[in-house]
Amino acid sequence: METAAVYHRPDSEMAYLKDHDHFQIRLKTKHDDVVKVDLLYGDPYGTKVNEKDEGNWEHRVINMKRTYQTKEVDYWISEVTLPLRRLQYAFHIYGRDGQEYLYDDRRIYRYSESGLDKLSCFRMPYLHECDRIKTPEWVRNTVWYQIFPERFANGDKSNDPKETLAWGSKKPTPENFFGGDLQGIIDHLDYLKELGINGLYLCPIFTARSNHKYDTIDYFNVDPAFGDKETLKELIDQAHEHGMHVMLDAVFNHMGDFSMQWKDVQKYGENSRFASWFHIHSFPVSYEETDNFEFAKNLTYDVFANTPHMPKINTADPKAREYLLNVATYWIEQFDIDAWRLDVANEIDHEFWKDFYARTHALKKDFYVLGEVWHSAQEWVGHKEFDAVMNYSYTEPIIDHFVKKELTVSEMTDMLQNQLMLYRDQTNQVMFNALDTHDTARILTLCHGNKELEKQVLAFMFTQIGAPCIYYGTEVGMDGGPDPDCRKCMVWDEEQQDKEMLQFVHSLVDMRHQYSQLWSKGSLKFEKTAEQSDLIVFKREYQNVQVVAVFNTGTQPQRVTVTDNAQVISQQNITKDGQINPDGFLIIRNN
Amino acid sequence: METAAVYHRPDSEMAYLKDHDHFQIRLKTKHDDVVKVDLLYGDPYGTKVNEKDEGNWEHRVINMKRTYQTKEVDYWISEVTLPLRRLQYAFHIYGRDGQEYLYDDRRIYRYSESGLDKLSCFRMPYLHECDRIKTPEWVRNTVWYQIFPERFANGDKSNDPKETLAWGSKKPTPENFFGGDLQGIIDHLDYLKELGINGLYLCPIFTARSNHKYDTIDYFNVDPAFGDKETLKELIDQAHEHGMHVMLDAVFNHMGDFSMQWKDVQKYGENSRFASWFHIHSFPVSYEETDNFEFAKNLTYDVFANTPHMPKINTADPKAREYLLNVATYWIEQFDIDAWRLDVANEIDHEFWKDFYARTHALKKDFYVLGEVWHSAQEWVGHKEFDAVMNYSYTEPIIDHFVKKELTVSEMTDMLQNQLMLYRDQTNQVMFNALDTHDTARILTLCHGNKELEKQVLAFMFTQIGAPCIYYGTEVGMDGGPDPDCRKCMVWDEEQQDKEMLQFVHSLVDMRHQYSQLWSKGSLKFEKTAEQSDLIVFKREYQNVQVVAVFNTGTQPQRVTVTDNAQVISQQNITKDGQINPDGFLIIRNN
Repeated sequence: METAAVYHRPDSEMAYLKDHDHFQIRLKTKHDDVVKVDLLYGDPYGTKVNEKDEGNWEHRVINMKRTYQTKEVDYWISEVTLPLRRLQYAFHIYGRDGQEYLYDDRRIYRYSESGLDKLSCFRMPYLHECDRIKTPEWVRNTVWYQIFPERFANGDKSNDPKETLAWGSKKPTPENFFGGDLQGIIDHLDYLKELGINGLYLCPIFTARSNHKYDTIDYFNVDPAFGDKETLKELIDQAHEHGMHVMLDAVFNHMGDFSMQWKDVQKYGENSRFASWFHIHSFPVSYEETDNFEFAKNLTYDVFANTPHMPKINTADPKAREYLLNVATYWIEQFDIDAWRLDVANEIDHEFWKDFYARTHALKKDFYVLGEVWHSAQEWVGHKEFDAVMNYSYTEPIIDHFVKKELTVSEMTDMLQNQLMLYRDQTNQVMFNALDTHDTARILTLCHGNKELEKQVLAFMFTQIGAPCIYYGTEVGMDGGPDPDCRKCMVWDEEQQDKEMLQFVHSLVDMRHQYSQLWSKGSLKFEKTAEQSDLIVFKREYQNVQVVAVFNTGTQPQRVTVTDNAQVISQQNITKDGQINPDGFLIIRNN
Repeated sequence: METAAVYHRPDSEMAYLKDHDHFQIRLKTKHDDVVKVDLLYGDPYGTKVNEKDEGNWEHRVINMKRTYQTKEVDYWISEVTLPLRRLQYAFHIYGRDGQEYLYDDRRIYRYSESGLDKLSCFRMPYLHECDRIKTPEWVRNTVWYQIFPERFANGDKSNDPKETLAWGSKKPTPENFFGGDLQGIIDHLDYLKELGINGLYLCPIFTARSNHKYDTIDYFNVDPAFGDKETLKELIDQAHEHGMHVMLDAVFNHMGDFSMQWKDVQKYGENSRFASWFHIHSFPVSYEETDNFEFAKNLTYDVFANTPHMPKINTADPKAREYLLNVATYWIEQFDIDAWRLDVANEIDHEFWKDFYARTHALKKDFYVLGEVWHSAQEWVGHKEFDAVMNYSYTEPIIDHFVKKELTVSEMTDMLQNQLMLYRDQTNQVMFNALDTHDTARILTLCHGNKELEKQVLAFMFTQIGAPCIYYGTEVGMDGGPDPDCRKCMVWDEEQQDKEMLQFVHSLVDMRHQYSQLWSKGSLKFEKTAEQSDLIVFKREYQNVQVVAVFNTGTQPQRVTVTDNAQVISQQNITKDGQINPDGFLIIRNN
């Protein structure tokens, strides 16, 4: 048995309270190397009345379930309940080679009966409800819709910036404006509701210079080109009435260099009362320009990436921190927002996010905090900082397989399973899954205009654990390359809308809502398929509902056998004789 | 190559700021399976001025050092510095079988040049000084002395409890008293200073019923049998004058059932204003007695272990929490204590300890928080809760090898290395290492009275990373079985003291102080020895000082070769012709 590959970590995503009563334990072993794992568990203090009973630890034994399997490793999972909320445990591992091992808090060693009396068990000393990672239930039932406000709809011409271009008349550039605003969103809430959307994610709406508004000037104001606070209030109230939650986007990592605070630093140097709000190495603040507007050399202060126009905020400074935390609570208290999406959230300190989480959740128990993190994020979602992250680590492998054909089926499913095993179940269930955003090329463009492929990969995302998000316009067939091309004006001209795509997306959203418990909480099991078949087969199951999905990502039709009583939930490119053509899929309910 | 055994975890003890400027990265691989590891690292935003440079990530490559090796795994370690405090990295791993792999944030896969352009790097997005785990420097130079106050010295007969027995006249029982008190400690500060002690750890001194005082009645008062607050003030002031830090012991997991709060609950049930301070399942609080005083059945409230006399405190209750946090700060603010040792600390919620850490450190920047945790404790020491834990997980394997002969040399050194790899370096350096405490049998008794063996294992502990602690009386040859026998009266009668042991312990303490940087911060490298030789050989090295230590834990003399210019630092049972006898050791300085 490959003992070097056996891994467990107490008090982590491998050992945690899933809900008030259920404690989940995971174990990792080398793939196909272990035939059985027994979890030995019980109360650390036993139930022995007499001292002489010592050494005979009263414990229970349950069989762990091999839940995920990749080319490298197997993941074994069990859930236990504990009347006294105290737990110690160890693993009894049966190798395929017939060798048996005990694995405890100190080591892994050959199994013996006497070894059981000498276990140094893993310990979860007391399961505190207050320490449990909780995530908002409503997100599990949410289909998000991401709006880039400058480009969604112009509902109020009176607030258009100077030099506003006619809607959709030009290609988007980093500098041009088309007049999109909050009234435009209000005007289309019925449209979104009809589509089945129940979560709105708005890119920044606070006063800023650019069209994307990620260079905040005033965190306490709505950008005049977007409307005013009354418009925002109306938007949020109406969204709530339409059964939608609203998520705003905040940039706390850096400010725009046109902010009052940074201009004060530029003017007064170290005597500015905002001097400590930034990471400044020497005064006066300065940098050396290059040909690239976004790239400076010899900066005397820290910035986002390499751009001199986005000075990094010192979130460890008590005043700066308090200011930003007040921003966070202001928009909840005064405008009743339901969630914050946090830009470049990974570059801000953990202490800040812990405060942020505590303050926001004190106001709204089921508030949702979404961090922009493109890589693995265990520390942020495992410690009451973010409820979830933008799940690029999950959706990129999907794109790399379905669209770019750079990963095989098993390479993709391996990566997806590994991603799921990085986080607690309650975290995975509220992850923010998007195939494209304002920061990436649009999925249709990645698909080189192949709409069947686009539909297939959308359908796949909608069947995964985590809440799916549609980037505005995807539903009407919009395309676009990387920023700024992915920020085109929304197509409202019905002539130009792809009605078939609209209907398809509508059906996906309906499917998501119809089986929302299954998609968000159900188990996920990828079936082994022939390596060359390019067929992805998986089961989702929750309580008495079982769904099987088959996706053909290859170039040849594939025959699949469907049981008689199966009910088709969604399908595409299926031949009459039951073959799945390339870019096709079949999602059926088995019972 | 065994890819399933390759493991790294960003933002953990495997990737952390060691000091302000040095970031340490660790990688685990299967033992002897990998010949070289390159760490690829650089700024995530590169230094590219032009967009077209994208894909050519400017990175540095350094060779990682294989620092620890066990039977199962190898640990590779590197430290890097980063001018912009931003980091992304990946591993290039060279297998013994000639295969090369890239290991990044998403997967491990065969190395190729083109793979370098597609890395999904591990990320440490920004290294915040405020997130760094810092531990107090003074602990690195501390030799602790643990005092069980009722049994150390009776300095004031006027405060003796009724039925106090003559000093040392009887065996200790769970109930008897001998009159030890704070004045007794004051009276012997010179003795302790002479011994080289510079850290006092006092078991609880707050008002309680028992002789051990772990059943607190009043957290804001000194137990009358120990003295009063003035005596305590004098003790702490004098200790400080003697160059000693003082650590008190607090029991926040549970209260004694004679506390005012619990008696109020017993009297008023759910109407008690302290009802929410405990974990009560139904009122009135009750339980069923058994033959064992410490074991109750059908408890209607949570307790420590199974004893009805120690009701567990609900540390999530805001009032109970505030009360305990006020206790924590009161003794720092008013009495200037330097450290808290926290009883049953693992059974209290993490949220509480985070608050506790913040409040205590706000008062004293280099305050030391020591948790009683007998098992692995990554979550507590990795997140500003405890600076360190009572390091039983490190010292028990030492005892299991040296004393109980239940582990081989390599089994022990494997476990010690695995323990070190559970924590950040700055944590290991301030771990609390004790061979015995008030909760265990005394080391001399475990050694069956073999004082040569006792000295050998003491010497070994003193050469390890972490601050050593002497349990009162060890230095004069005291023995004792498990609680209560390990709590005998201190032997002050010089006739009965083992003067040779005193001199030996004194020499160990001197050795610790003379090379305090080396022992606390130096590298540790166990050398491979023949499995049957029972010879432990290791090097410690810091800056220009290198020490080699050899311990013979077998039954045969062992010859060792010593270079000419070596200088003996400490030794025992060395023959004239340079052999190390059983129970012998040799510690030399090589330069």
